[in-house]
Amino acid sequence: MDEKKISKAVINRLPRYYRYLGDLLEKDVVRISSKELSEMMSVTASQIRQDLNNFGGFGQQGYGYNVDYLYAEIGKILGLDKQHNIIIIGAGNLGQALANYADFERRGFTLKSLFDIDPKLIGNEIRGIKIRPIDELESYMKENYVDIAAITVPRFNASEIANNLAKWGIKAMWNFAPTDLNLPKDIVVENVHLAESLLRLSFRLSSNKSN
Amino acid sequence: MDEKKISKAVINRLPRYYRYLGDLLEKDVVRISSKELSEMMSVTASQIRQDLNNFGGFGQQGYGYNVDYLYAEIGKILGLDKQHNIIIIGAGNLGQALANYADFERRGFTLKSLFDIDPKLIGNEIRGIKIRPIDELESYMKENYVDIAAITVPRFNASEIANNLAKWGIKAMWNFAPTDLNLPKDIVVENVHLAESLLRLSFRLSSNKSN
Repeated sequence: MDEKKISKAVINRLPRYYRYLGDLLEKDVVRISSKELSEMMSVTASQIRQDLNNFGGFGQQGYGYNVDYLYAEIGKILGLDKQHNIIIIGAGNLGQALANYADFERRGFTLKSLFDIDPKLIGNEIRGIKIRPIDELESYMKENYVDIAAITVPRFNASEIANNLAKWGIKAMWNFAPTDLNLPKDIVVENVHLAESLLRLSFRLSSNKSN
Repeated sequence: MDEKKISKAVINRLPRYYRYLGDLLEKDVVRISSKELSEMMSVTASQIRQDLNNFGGFGQQGYGYNVDYLYAEIGKILGLDKQHNIIIIGAGNLGQALANYADFERRGFTLKSLFDIDPKLIGNEIRGIKIRPIDELESYMKENYVDIAAITVPRFNASEIANNLAKWGIKAMWNFAPTDLNLPKDIVVENVHLAESLLRLSFRLSSNKSN
């Protein structure tokens, strides 16, 4: 499989396929046609066939897709067959929300540590994982293998922390700080800008009203 | 200005322009050229000119954009000149993180109430706003004007709550539950699917490694 051929639009849709297939698995559904999947997902059946054909076409005419197999294959494409170590920088409400999201564990993301600057938080445990002082981040990064750092610190701290993490060998950042991180190209940055999402909602709400 | 003409791609970029212009305002920058803005935002100057021309072209040749004016105009387009009442359904870590995000208040989103099912949370206050039992949601919706509901409840509760809110007159939902809400077309739904964002990160991390 040549990953470079798969368009960004298809990649962006894969996590949604993965979610629906996971739901079907939980309901013990063994196979599903592109038509059924299409109705569930409100996507055309031809789009589903086209998307899934990118991965060698796991479906069979008249039989449909094997849910278990397709789930596992998409999981592999998404890199979920590997274990990922994750740390969270910023153990406030948002950091704690991420730390408590047990689904991540199930998908191979192992929370290794949290870091914060607030003495009231340092030493506390979340799901048995201790919150460390941010001063220990450098030594922690040198002594441990970390793939992903979730950044939930305020905007004005985020860039410095991100630059340091890059220097200390982080592979990817899941950035919740409302700022754009300027990092070397080989570091993956996935942004979740909550404020921008709310502004898009506001725009749509306000154009709705004026219709 | 005819909003319908503006492409979705431009709309999606507006919150980012708004953020950068807000940063400039904080630094007391009065005007900025498309070239300077382009360097800050890592977008071509011609894209910036094209995007901002959608709104009547606030820039002047050789003078640049008036930051304050452009910020206010984009704010109006985003509906930020209006007040929006928001409630949060689910007062766990994520709901509390949203409730504590003071920036929303500054942009005209007023948090009116939080609702939860957990007796340990009910009655607690966040920034002076009381967490109410979810049983009171219906009467609350009938007695108060609410524009936006942020949904931070678990997946299996989200659809029922969303359907009820739709029935009780909600205008928009900011959905954090990892499920697709099927609601009447006139209700705006903005999804923030954290798990999908992490899976996209995982995909890019795993294709990075294999390069």
